[in-house]
Amino acid sequence: MAAKQSGKIWPQYVVVVGCGRLGSLLAGLLSQAGSSVVVIDRNEAAFELLSPEFSGFRITGDAVEMEVLKVAKAHKAGCLLAVTEDDNVNLMVAQVAHEVFKVPRVMARVFDPRREQVYREFGIETISPTKLTANAFLAAVQERREDERCA
Amino acid sequence: MAAKQSGKIWPQYVVVVGCGRLGSLLAGLLSQAGSSVVVIDRNEAAFELLSPEFSGFRITGDAVEMEVLKVAKAHKAGCLLAVTEDDNVNLMVAQVAHEVFKVPRVMARVFDPRREQVYREFGIETISPTKLTANAFLAAVQERREDERCA
Repeated sequence: MAAKQSGKIWPQYVVVVGCGRLGSLLAGLLSQAGSSVVVIDRNEAAFELLSPEFSGFRITGDAVEMEVLKVAKAHKAGCLLAVTEDDNVNLMVAQVAHEVFKVPRVMARVFDPRREQVYREFGIETISPTKLTANAFLAAVQERREDERCA
Repeated sequence: MAAKQSGKIWPQYVVVVGCGRLGSLLAGLLSQAGSSVVVIDRNEAAFELLSPEFSGFRITGDAVEMEVLKVAKAHKAGCLLAVTEDDNVNLMVAQVAHEVFKVPRVMARVFDPRREQVYREFGIETISPTKLTANAFLAAVQERREDERCA
């Protein structure tokens, strides 16, 4: 089952690991879209970044520890997003979610684009902010031509 | 004048501030596309991230100091990309490039989406990795529906 809103289908139950800028934004948006969201962070203060609209659960703990993912009911999640600031943590959490808790969709933020292959070998989908941002800059750089200055 | 490659038009002369993962990737790609690129970083070791194809210049220095942007010939640049890891540095460098060196296109990476308005007021274009990445995750989350698990 999935939550429906404005024609889009969102996963019913999502675990978000890491409540930094990205994690808090994702948790808030998914929560608003109708998903049940559990957000995990080692640092309780991180939850202050959550929007007032966030109606999910917060777990203070290190998601690298199996017990924390158990408390988060990862085995029931349709989706887990590993989006801490640390590629190694994201990879570890994503692997455990995928292998142990059999979460059907596991996605991880990976800053170092060269490491994406390793993730894929473990069956983990990756999103690289570095590549996304580089592409956005390159597209923007080519947009306007009139105000180009000679070297 | 702009460099042409495969139908795309790239700026002739680009200054990239920050040679982390994003800056080194951008510098390499722009260099390969035919742009003249100067990349600036405070930390000389950062230049090791540059691809072997990078044929531009490297300046070790703090781009917040006016003198460093002078050495980089910022006044001749068609484009300056402020892409350090620090939003404050990016804003300062972008402002100086825009106001003092009259660089026609100044773009900055801004991690905190709430700060984008401030940049815009200074005439600086912004690209937010946080927003780009969140959108990519949300789009991916909705993609597959068959393997969705009930909560």
